[in-house]
Amino acid sequence: MIITRVRLHRISMPLVSPFTTSFGTEHSKEALIVEIGADTAAGPVTGWGECVAMEDPLYSSEYVDGCAQVIGRWLVPALTAGQQGGPHGAGDTEGGDADDLVAETVGHRLRHVIGHPMAKAAVEMAVLDAQLRASGQSFAAYLGGVRSTVPSGVSVGIQESIEQTLRVVEGYLDDGYVRIKLKIKPGWDVELVRAVRGVFGDDVPLQVDANAAYTLLDATTLRRLDEFGLLLLEQPLAEDDLRQHAVLATRLQTPLCLDESVVSARSAADAIALGAAQVINIKPGRVGGYLEAVRIHDLARAHGIAVWCGGMLETGLGRSANAALASLPGFVLPGDISASSRFYDVDLTEPVEMVDGQVAVDTTPGIGRAPIPELLERFRTDLSVVFRR
Amino acid sequence: MIITRVRLHRISMPLVSPFTTSFGTEHSKEALIVEIGADTAAGPVTGWGECVAMEDPLYSSEYVDGCAQVIGRWLVPALTAGQQGGPHGAGDTEGGDADDLVAETVGHRLRHVIGHPMAKAAVEMAVLDAQLRASGQSFAAYLGGVRSTVPSGVSVGIQESIEQTLRVVEGYLDDGYVRIKLKIKPGWDVELVRAVRGVFGDDVPLQVDANAAYTLLDATTLRRLDEFGLLLLEQPLAEDDLRQHAVLATRLQTPLCLDESVVSARSAADAIALGAAQVINIKPGRVGGYLEAVRIHDLARAHGIAVWCGGMLETGLGRSANAALASLPGFVLPGDISASSRFYDVDLTEPVEMVDGQVAVDTTPGIGRAPIPELLERFRTDLSVVFRR
Amino acid sequence: MIITRVRLHRISMPLVSPFTTSFGTEHSKEALIVEIGADTAAGPVTGWGECVAMEDPLYSSEYVDGCAQVIGRWLVPALTAGQQGGPHGAGDTEGGDADDLVAETVGHRLRHVIGHPMAKAAVEMAVLDAQLRASGQSFAAYLGGVRSTVPSGVSVGIQESIEQTLRVVEGYLDDGYVRIKLKIKPGWDVELVRAVRGVFGDDVPLQVDANAAYTLLDATTLRRLDEFGLLLLEQPLAEDDLRQHAVLATRLQTPLCLDESVVSARSAADAIALGAAQVINIKPGRVGGYLEAVRIHDLARAHGIAVWCGGMLETGLGRSANAALASLPGFVLPGDISASSRFYDVDLTEPVEMVDGQVAVDTTPGIGRAPIPELLERFRTDLSVVFRR
Amino acid sequence: MIITRVRLHRISMPLVSPFTTSFGTEHSKEALIVEIGADTAAGPVTGWGECVAMEDPLYSSEYVDGCAQVIGRWLVPALTAGQQGGPHGAGDTEGGDADDLVAETVGHRLRHVIGHPMAKAAVEMAVLDAQLRASGQSFAAYLGGVRSTVPSGVSVGIQESIEQTLRVVEGYLDDGYVRIKLKIKPGWDVELVRAVRGVFGDDVPLQVDANAAYTLLDATTLRRLDEFGLLLLEQPLAEDDLRQHAVLATRLQTPLCLDESVVSARSAADAIALGAAQVINIKPGRVGGYLEAVRIHDLARAHGIAVWCGGMLETGLGRSANAALASLPGFVLPGDISASSRFYDVDLTEPVEMVDGQVAVDTTPGIGRAPIPELLERFRTDLSVVFRR
Repeated sequence: MIITRVRLHRISMPLVSPFTTSFGTEHSKEALIVEIGADTAAGPVTGWGECVAMEDPLYSSEYVDGCAQVIGRWLVPALTAGQQGGPHGAGDTEGGDADDLVAETVGHRLRHVIGHPMAKAAVEMAVLDAQLRASGQSFAAYLGGVRSTVPSGVSVGIQESIEQTLRVVEGYLDDGYVRIKLKIKPGWDVELVRAVRGVFGDDVPLQVDANAAYTLLDATTLRRLDEFGLLLLEQPLAEDDLRQHAVLATRLQTPLCLDESVVSARSAADAIALGAAQVINIKPGRVGGYLEAVRIHDLARAHGIAVWCGGMLETGLGRSANAALASLPGFVLPGDISASSRFYDVDLTEPVEMVDGQVAVDTTPGIGRAPIPELLERFRTDLSVVFRR
Repeated sequence: MIITRVRLHRISMPLVSPFTTSFGTEHSKEALIVEIGADTAAGPVTGWGECVAMEDPLYSSEYVDGCAQVIGRWLVPALTAGQQGGPHGAGDTEGGDADDLVAETVGHRLRHVIGHPMAKAAVEMAVLDAQLRASGQSFAAYLGGVRSTVPSGVSVGIQESIEQTLRVVEGYLDDGYVRIKLKIKPGWDVELVRAVRGVFGDDVPLQVDANAAYTLLDATTLRRLDEFGLLLLEQPLAEDDLRQHAVLATRLQTPLCLDESVVSARSAADAIALGAAQVINIKPGRVGGYLEAVRIHDLARAHGIAVWCGGMLETGLGRSANAALASLPGFVLPGDISASSRFYDVDLTEPVEMVDGQVAVDTTPGIGRAPIPELLERFRTDLSVVFRR
Repeated sequence: MIITRVRLHRISMPLVSPFTTSFGTEHSKEALIVEIGADTAAGPVTGWGECVAMEDPLYSSEYVDGCAQVIGRWLVPALTAGQQGGPHGAGDTEGGDADDLVAETVGHRLRHVIGHPMAKAAVEMAVLDAQLRASGQSFAAYLGGVRSTVPSGVSVGIQESIEQTLRVVEGYLDDGYVRIKLKIKPGWDVELVRAVRGVFGDDVPLQVDANAAYTLLDATTLRRLDEFGLLLLEQPLAEDDLRQHAVLATRLQTPLCLDESVVSARSAADAIALGAAQVINIKPGRVGGYLEAVRIHDLARAHGIAVWCGGMLETGLGRSANAALASLPGFVLPGDISASSRFYDVDLTEPVEMVDGQVAVDTTPGIGRAPIPELLERFRTDLSVVFRR
Repeated sequence: MIITRVRLHRISMPLVSPFTTSFGTEHSKEALIVEIGADTAAGPVTGWGECVAMEDPLYSSEYVDGCAQVIGRWLVPALTAGQQGGPHGAGDTEGGDADDLVAETVGHRLRHVIGHPMAKAAVEMAVLDAQLRASGQSFAAYLGGVRSTVPSGVSVGIQESIEQTLRVVEGYLDDGYVRIKLKIKPGWDVELVRAVRGVFGDDVPLQVDANAAYTLLDATTLRRLDEFGLLLLEQPLAEDDLRQHAVLATRLQTPLCLDESVVSARSAADAIALGAAQVINIKPGRVGGYLEAVRIHDLARAHGIAVWCGGMLETGLGRSANAALASLPGFVLPGDISASSRFYDVDLTEPVEMVDGQVAVDTTPGIGRAPIPELLERFRTDLSVVFRR
């Protein structure tokens, strides 16, 4: 395909309620929507990507405005350079002529830029969406999905009290969510889990997410979670420390799951080799895109490591693409793929619905849904054209 | 797509000269060509696959006629069952309706059949070829290739004498092959390599292939190869023994490469985890198909393990598809992708050519070439229709 | 001995009830009976072998008709080649003149054929039977048996409900079986075992068999079996993955037993060295024959690993031979050597009987029993003569 | 102290010659100078910091303009929040009242911001400079330096030819540099080192820097460097892969040194524990500041690991501060602390001079030098006031 236009839509969407984790509270969803226009053999198409970076660099080093800068200055030029005779970003033409741009080599073309996986993922997602819309294939079919629906788990932010948490959990169980994830932090962990288990019983699929808020010293506390039969304990230690996770894993019975620490197939390979992960939470944005996400899925599966699909409060765009990813055979644990209504009264796209605890996998070409123009305009706080041919 | 017809062409093609390895001598290439007719959104298409099993079960447990039986009895029915109301092979509909048949889930649909990777690979290849012809994408673009040509190495069978080997090697170097692989076996190893190094110097990229003909006891002999600066030593020990390879690896400086032992991404993961392989020879047939081959490429790359693409005396069909695979970024060593003329005076398809030591990667839709009807008929020894809608 | 005739009897025998495992349901027993006529110093004898491959390649890659093909095309010719001046299959006469054919070197003569252990086992069994009939020695005496009876365990397939399972188990206990093995699969495991333990108490020798239906992720579930004091957990993970079993073994208290993964003495050595097995289920067919079975027994015993003899729904032929094997001193756990009546109303041979939970070891020459001609004819669906001198 | 003003000076300084590494060529030095005005017990002072991020995110994920954004939006507000009643960035006052701002807790106050070590380092450096100017202590004295001069090594970029490299090296040796570092990349390695050793002999302290341009596969090539007696091989593999470096270390005799991979004391601890580093190149910017640099020095020394001080083409500001750091006792290898004239005809500050291969450690308060106003103005391309009280 030939890229003819790239526009970045900076949006701000109100959340139905604030979402608190160990690293902060979000009141609105700030995001960047990447729109790529391209000429293809099937005619002109538009592809959409969603950048999951948060407003502030508190979950990872990326943040929305930085992503916009990186996309505009380095990523898009590296993909369009050969197409209009402009400077070539990577000084490297191994990826083939830019005229031959295909989603499969976007990552390769952008490899000279260090880091910034969420920015890269958003661009690749838009190129892939355009390519699949042109070829008429759905995201799920392309990625190799084998399920028509995926089970829907829900992530419960840190609440003001245990009582309130119990009410919130009850509501989600009533809604039909098949798995509960509790955000924890030091001081908000063992008693919380004990209370939830006490009220809802041992059969509720339950896991906890620490968002890197603990240290190796807390092994004693974390071991107290062993008795509750949790599905997993997610990312207790710092993101850049696989080795300490490996040490911790030897002290716990609860399976250890990594999130922030896995930023690529290579880091997944390291985590597995070091014994730092028995489960991996795959977030396509965090690892640089859906294609790297599939690679991690494949790698983990080959090693007997379970994966599930995490969420970053995505709009319907990313939410639908995540459901497609989660339909692959190695996604054996329910992911954080909740209904749009979990976070938004009005989503950017047709809302993702949950029925009987399941979200349907879209089967129409590409991602299967796109921003609704009037809603995109309503939520948009900034629009920039970073490329026009 | 909907499969409308599956035909198996059993062919026998004369080799330009007999090919001898530690496990036997081939005088002709016996193969099975899988032809799949399918209805797609783009209209009816025909896809072609090549089964690389040999005539006898001496390289692996598979053999041509067994593959034909397995394809006809279990594999094709598992893909076509839902399409005509016949019995469903796997008793499992997780793979989706057969009407939705896509190449990406062929492996998943066939997973209940244990073993038989070459048979499965041939079927998947034909489905993938059909799918890509329908969508207009080339094999290389689909797989994620980043090179327009791939370097061409050549495999030198066991000759009658060292002198003759030197003449053969000289001929291949004159032809322009960029890497020489010598087949070795006990008693035909150190002196052979010494002679080749002596005549052609230390700069010729050189590797050796033992086809599982040694035992751990031979470590002492194999260590004598260390001084020759070989690129790698391929598959010295038995195919089903990763652990002994891991032990051997600690005793050699020459990088150890696995071939027969790697039959899936899982076994590749095991080999790497056990330290049994520093390099992997990926043969798509041996691992169950091109999609699993890509998974092994991705896995190896994540672990820092080099891969290259081996050969099974393929006709132009498999030869072209192998070149597409070898254009992926992790294929950092030259493969056994020689010109058709290395093995055949007349190939089944338009011949694969080598220019300046490179084979061009096909860019037309699908595999990029197909059997030439009159040649298919000339080489064919049997034709069976295993499915017709 | 000199082989004078080889005939393959393809038979189909009705089962008393369908037998369901995690990989499928069998309604009849499909088998291949190998009949070898030979001239020996003691005159002409007939030896019988039974091939345990199943009808479809769902337990292992072998299947009945494939075995017939391999036996006819490669195995028998490799044994008879020198005897009548015909072509020698392996191009290798190291095994000695074919005139010297003895059972002890059958495996060595067939080693060039990769895989196909069940086919090889059937041929070796028939040669061994003929040889022992000629020398007047019983199977048990030849193999080194030390018991005149062996305890009889029973394998309980997956039933329609837990209640039905309880009834079936009660019946078998009433019959006198000294050990119960429950087939399990995901979702049919912890509650099942809990129910059986609840009804029949903690003293019933109980073990479970997963037939490779789990993944490493299921460690959490499988660990829940620890509390039930099982004798062992059999083959939870994929057949070709010793390493993952080794990882799993560190997470469980229940001893891990391998079945499908052990296909040779070498793979048994690997499993033990990697810590992947605390117990080994020896099935002579799966490992290439009774002589390799003895080698695995010896190896395991040297390493302090327990073994027991599994079953493949054998007719009286294999059933008797298995009892002989199980009389060796290292078989310290009861095997799946039930009475013929467990599976067949009418067996192919005189039925194997169980008395007081014990099966008597045959002491007459060779296997000690042979197909009853009229029954062989009744069950036979095909007869082929693959060699005649 | 109380911060009263923070200004960011974006500067562009011409290089005496382009500097080429495996990841690109720099023609000018783009940098950010942080100026902090503060009220202290000793009266108002000005502190200076230098951000070493490069113009493009090709060495690490940071880049100059991104650093300016992060400093202005998150870092400075986190330090000044309490001082004027504004919002507190981290929602956490554990770091004490902002009125108590001391350099020693800057890192702690900024820990909620993930990543961005170069931005953090620049801010901490400016606070520390102000603090030391107020207390009259020199950088070296404060950090614990034990030498009055430090040996000066030089880094030789990738040249157009080996001949030109030899001329450049000769010039530097004539200048008096006591150690040569050659930048290498695949294809520009063994022959280069062989040539330099050939001309200048085995006694020249020589090391090579790969800037992450190799893969584990290249172990064979890298091992060929063993014969040249190099001081060390720096950062051959990807920045985020300690484990693969640990594997590589077992295959080489040349000591392995890490640069990009060590971004904190924690990652240094991991590298050491995994066996991934025998030497560490400490760059204060890369690890988040001079105080973390001292912690890495201390940690490495406790483990018996050598360290040396790398360079990022610093202006006289960072160059002087680096010399102070390199005066600590664990810096047992010469660093990349060359004279200003190595890179600049005119430096931003009084130039750093080299005499007899040594650079003098500044002993005046704080960093010991500051931007010369007219030069700062000359080189400045942008000025922004990010905080004013």
